[in-house]
Parts: sequence; structure tokens; C-alpha cells
Amino acid sequence: MARVVVVVMLKPEILDPQGRAVQGALGRIGLGGVADVRQGKQFIIDLDGEVDDAVLAQLHDIAGSLLSNPVLENYELSVEFTDGDGA
Amino acid sequence: MARVVVVVMLKPEILDPQGRAVQGALGRIGLGGVADVRQGKQFIIDLDGEVDDAVLAQLHDIAGSLLSNPVLENYELSVEFTDGDGA
Repeated sequence: MARVVVVVMLKPEILDPQGRAVQGALGRIGLGGVADVRQGKQFIIDLDGEVDDAVLAQLHDIAGSLLSNPVLENYELSVEFTDGDGA
Repeated sequence: MARVVVVVMLKPEILDPQGRAVQGALGRIGLGGVADVRQGKQFIIDLDGEVDDAVLAQLHDIAGSLLSNPVLENYELSVEFTDGDGA
């Protein structure tokens, strides 16, 4: 078993209307001093077996194309845990 | 400055159709052995000043009501960094 987490966020230079809406709402309900809010997506992918270099390369391909839009978004991929024995 | 990250995921017992769709797509494009995919939201909140206990309590209130639906979703809140001097 292995768990891979992919976080997809809009690039910093892209306006984030959802984040802006949350920022406004936070101010209205009394949380002051909110400088910025960005909203993104998180994918938790559970895999049978281990994450070796080939699987990791494939996952990066997928994260950069299927899970994110490379024109607008950046992704961060992290392997939370992986079995070394391929169980 | 402080940065707070709130991750909102559907509770494990709630069916996640978006995650299920991604799981199907991963299989079709050749990534085998995908046991499960769950999709959630991530909020990155940048605050002026430091996160003290009062602000943290307020943030938990907000994460549990405004940012997530407590009937369907769980949230995880983490303070990524905070200035201790209230700058």
C-alpha cells in the first residue's frame, strides 16, 4: 500500500475568485487581518503496491495533465507512505 | 505574518463521486492498482499578525462551519508558520 497526495493550486499570478470570496466572508464574520486566501484541490490516491521511480514518474505525468491544468495551476506531489516490499 | 492551511475532505463513509471519477480515469490511462481516490479542498489563509489561542479557536470555528460542511466533511487545520512577535 502507498498513499500519494497531490495538491493543486492556481498559480500565484492567476486571480482566485473562490479564495477572494472566502477572504471577504472571513472579514464579514469577524476574523480581521486576513491578507490573502487561496483555494485549491487535494487528491489522496491510495495505491496497491509500492511507489517506485517508474510509478512516481507516471504519477507526475498524471498530476501535471489530468489532475491540474498546467496553464493555470501548479501541483505538489508527495508520497505520504509506501511499502518497500511491494505488498 | 502567519499561514494557516485548512484541508477539507468528505468523511470516509460518504461516497466521493469526484474521487471515483478520477480513479476510473487513472485506470483508463494506464495507472494500475489504484485502490481509492478521494478529492477534497485546500484553503491557504495568510494572516497579518500571529496566531494566538484566541485566533486559533476562531479559525477552528470558521473551518468547521464556513469552510466545511460538518455533516458531510472533516477538516484538518494546521498552522504552517506564525510570527511570535505579532508583526
